[in-house]
Amino acid sequence: MTKKDKLKIVPLGGVNEIGKNMTMIEYKNEIIVIDCGLMFPEEEMFGIDVVIPDVSYLIKNKDKVKGIFLTHGHEDHIGGLPYILKQLNVPVYGTRLTLGIVETRLKDHGLLTTSDLRVVTAGDIVELDTMKVEFIRNCHSIADSCSLAIHTNLGTIVHTGDFKIDYTPIDGATMDLARFAELGKKGVLLLLADSTNVERPGYTMSERVVGETFDNIFQEATGRIIVATFASNVHRIQQIINSACKFNRKLAVSGRSVENIVEVAYALGYLDIPEGLLISIDDINRYNDKQIVILTTGSQGEPMSALARMSTSEHKKVEIKEGDLVIISATPIPGNEKLISRVINQLFKKGANVYYQSLADVHVSGHACQEELKLIHTLTRPKYFMPVHGEFRHLKQHAFLAEKLGMDRSNIFIAEIGQVLEITKDGAKLNGNIPAGQVLVDGLGVGDVGNIVLRDRKHLSQDGILTVVVTIDRSNGKILAGPDIISRGFVYVRESEDLIEEAKKLVKKAIDECLSNQITEWATIKSNIRDILRDFLYEKTKRKPMILPIIMEI
Amino acid sequence: MTKKDKLKIVPLGGVNEIGKNMTMIEYKNEIIVIDCGLMFPEEEMFGIDVVIPDVSYLIKNKDKVKGIFLTHGHEDHIGGLPYILKQLNVPVYGTRLTLGIVETRLKDHGLLTTSDLRVVTAGDIVELDTMKVEFIRNCHSIADSCSLAIHTNLGTIVHTGDFKIDYTPIDGATMDLARFAELGKKGVLLLLADSTNVERPGYTMSERVVGETFDNIFQEATGRIIVATFASNVHRIQQIINSACKFNRKLAVSGRSVENIVEVAYALGYLDIPEGLLISIDDINRYNDKQIVILTTGSQGEPMSALARMSTSEHKKVEIKEGDLVIISATPIPGNEKLISRVINQLFKKGANVYYQSLADVHVSGHACQEELKLIHTLTRPKYFMPVHGEFRHLKQHAFLAEKLGMDRSNIFIAEIGQVLEITKDGAKLNGNIPAGQVLVDGLGVGDVGNIVLRDRKHLSQDGILTVVVTIDRSNGKILAGPDIISRGFVYVRESEDLIEEAKKLVKKAIDECLSNQITEWATIKSNIRDILRDFLYEKTKRKPMILPIIMEI
Repeated sequence: MTKKDKLKIVPLGGVNEIGKNMTMIEYKNEIIVIDCGLMFPEEEMFGIDVVIPDVSYLIKNKDKVKGIFLTHGHEDHIGGLPYILKQLNVPVYGTRLTLGIVETRLKDHGLLTTSDLRVVTAGDIVELDTMKVEFIRNCHSIADSCSLAIHTNLGTIVHTGDFKIDYTPIDGATMDLARFAELGKKGVLLLLADSTNVERPGYTMSERVVGETFDNIFQEATGRIIVATFASNVHRIQQIINSACKFNRKLAVSGRSVENIVEVAYALGYLDIPEGLLISIDDINRYNDKQIVILTTGSQGEPMSALARMSTSEHKKVEIKEGDLVIISATPIPGNEKLISRVINQLFKKGANVYYQSLADVHVSGHACQEELKLIHTLTRPKYFMPVHGEFRHLKQHAFLAEKLGMDRSNIFIAEIGQVLEITKDGAKLNGNIPAGQVLVDGLGVGDVGNIVLRDRKHLSQDGILTVVVTIDRSNGKILAGPDIISRGFVYVRESEDLIEEAKKLVKKAIDECLSNQITEWATIKSNIRDILRDFLYEKTKRKPMILPIIMEI
Repeated sequence: MTKKDKLKIVPLGGVNEIGKNMTMIEYKNEIIVIDCGLMFPEEEMFGIDVVIPDVSYLIKNKDKVKGIFLTHGHEDHIGGLPYILKQLNVPVYGTRLTLGIVETRLKDHGLLTTSDLRVVTAGDIVELDTMKVEFIRNCHSIADSCSLAIHTNLGTIVHTGDFKIDYTPIDGATMDLARFAELGKKGVLLLLADSTNVERPGYTMSERVVGETFDNIFQEATGRIIVATFASNVHRIQQIINSACKFNRKLAVSGRSVENIVEVAYALGYLDIPEGLLISIDDINRYNDKQIVILTTGSQGEPMSALARMSTSEHKKVEIKEGDLVIISATPIPGNEKLISRVINQLFKKGANVYYQSLADVHVSGHACQEELKLIHTLTRPKYFMPVHGEFRHLKQHAFLAEKLGMDRSNIFIAEIGQVLEITKDGAKLNGNIPAGQVLVDGLGVGDVGNIVLRDRKHLSQDGILTVVVTIDRSNGKILAGPDIISRGFVYVRESEDLIEEAKKLVKKAIDECLSNQITEWATIKSNIRDILRDFLYEKTKRKPMILPIIMEI
């Protein structure tokens, strides 16, 4: 170690936002990447499918990148892989279940055979030249989840990943708090910690309480039971299995993502499914209603999900009926409240009874609340702290929490995406930025939809478009055909023929005036048409459709 | 009263939805209307400004309609008036504050002089031929709010309106529970009751607890205090005034809606503002920061609101700075979570400290929770019950609650918008429908945006539009100009010139093929162009823009 050795820590996603978690650590000639998530588009990202981190810095420094280290298998930690491995094919390290889920994603993108997936177990240490990456067992709303410790000769960085402290986890694998304590005792240089639930006082309840609720609900149910949950929550699925067994019900699974997970998790030994419990969704009608549990997707009200389709009679195998009991074992991700509410309403209308979080303890969070965060801070006693995984409000509250625990404000760093936290022997500071941000994925296009396209989509969504076409004789500037006006998303034409007729006259007049004034530049004529129509339409309708003048020359 | 006399109760809005509350009661030759609200558009109602109830039945029976009776002055109870009074100019009854707010709305629409507003006081009874409409004091998150009792010789209908039971309201005017009890004792035929908070156990806290929180926060504050709340919550504003006085701060008001309300409420005596407390927003810099409170709008994160503009330095008079303390004294209306979060993040980034509901008791609901609902049911002991003001899930839970209190399931009616509850001497039943539903308002257009326009706007918002223009010689079917392709919201053209060039060739080929096959109907040619381009673009981009072929003939 020389005096000049610099450790650079850069969030490439997951700060000032919920989603697309990704952190880069650079030391000497090596770079490691922690997680590679995606984010679902914000409301104003019209037509966008997913959003991934901008990794141009990594691509530019390809040779340095030694691997991507995954903390767990949630989309916001692994979902960017299929896009990013195409540009940056480096080893991917993760636990068995995590990589099992990654495999299903890579298969969908035809990348499975070319990818280098390396399975680790909690406790394993991956040794690089300048860094050692240690996987530490934690608890989260998915099995086989880990925190990471990155050991360098400048000190140790602890990245919690997503976590909660569950003293009674379903699989018995409690968080390795002793290791956190040991690291703390030896000295932690920097802590990066999950801020998702920092606004919530107290503790997150154990996953086990949900099982108790299930048992109570199953006990009372007289018809079919349908449970929707996050597909990846293997512990939750295990508890549904347990309750089904206890009350002598068969389990059928419907919904692509949960079918995949059940298959992967069972194959890898993360689910304990007794012989004979599982039946095909095709066979549910061969049993009494009170012998049936259906595990399904759609806990976020996604319109194309199995549960949503069941609720609107569009599901091929299951139709909701009087006497069904539906459990929505999830909490709405912000932005999904209305979608979920719509499904709940629809289920009630079909005659089902519905349990959801405002009515019963059918869900617990996977993230640590304030007291749990305090424990991790207290055990690791880091020199420096960077809150991650949260919007600015969460990062700020997490910084407050660290201060209250006695940390010096100057040792706490709230970074933006791309901002470099530089640590040397002498201290730490935020020092500059690397290229970073978001890349929008729309269909096959990765990054080709930019602000202009999004702005146009927004404009179109508000008031539609009016296309004005006219064919003009190049030789004498006379109108040969048109002007024709075709509108979409503006007004329904049959109801506004007069308006369109009047608009045509105005366009004709505008063109004639231009030409008689010797204005022959199409750009000027188009701009005149646009101005005149915009004013006219706004006066008549108080709407501002996009106006697209097209002049054809012959 | 003859055996045939029928009382018809029809929700025209506010059931199976949150918003645009409106209920119609018809008896013999008279109709009365309770409330006349608006709703803000759902996410998929692209470009729509507001949604109002369809009142075609009322217009058809204009002569029968004796008046609109308002329970209180919230938008979802009065906001439809400016649109509906234009078609149905009947007397409007309400308390002083309610009509004071209505006046500001009617003024904006130039309807004030032609409207017939009739002020009532809680306790008043408006006598019609066949019905008597009694206003009964209740409590809600706006002052001067009432429930209604409609007396007919078939029995009495009680409509709670929006309410909560606050034993210590700010203005001292507690809900007239004695009157509810008295009506119950005499016999209530039908209860219609607010279902908004039926999913919440226990009681809604008194408005007064918010004042205590304000005092605690004000005590600690060392800089400016900025409070955003619902403009119409006069009690909340009074408490802000009280805390400002107590801690020797001046109050400035910013934001059109709250400026209006403060003016109206003060003029009508609903706000007690000590001499010298109020200062102009222009003068805030003439005081020390710790002498200032700013009351403002934007508690729902509305992007154009005063608070949002302060947070992004777009407000002309106030810029958020280090040391400011912002209180968001409201709870997110479902769907607004992300907007609010964005403002909170921005405020923190500017260096303010922010209090919001997840951190402190800075807001209480205006609606009754389960125990309050039980009290009203128990006091009124209605023969029949119709839950109102809620989505289906809420109406259903409210029905469960009534059943648990001993009501017979067959006496509970969950109606849809337009569904007629018919009550005679012999019984009650849901019997048919009247024309009803929603009317979309977009700019000056009331009801002219229908499903086709909305579907087009949605399509445009997802993948944009590709306009294909070609000019053809009518005499020989030859292409004279084009095909030209102009796209908006699809891809940024400069980055996809090859794609567009290839598309043009395909279009040209399609047209030539049609013409050489003697296909000369433009509709067929257009449809061919559309099919070919759609398949081509989907294959190349996995996107499905709207395709608009235009053929000009010369």
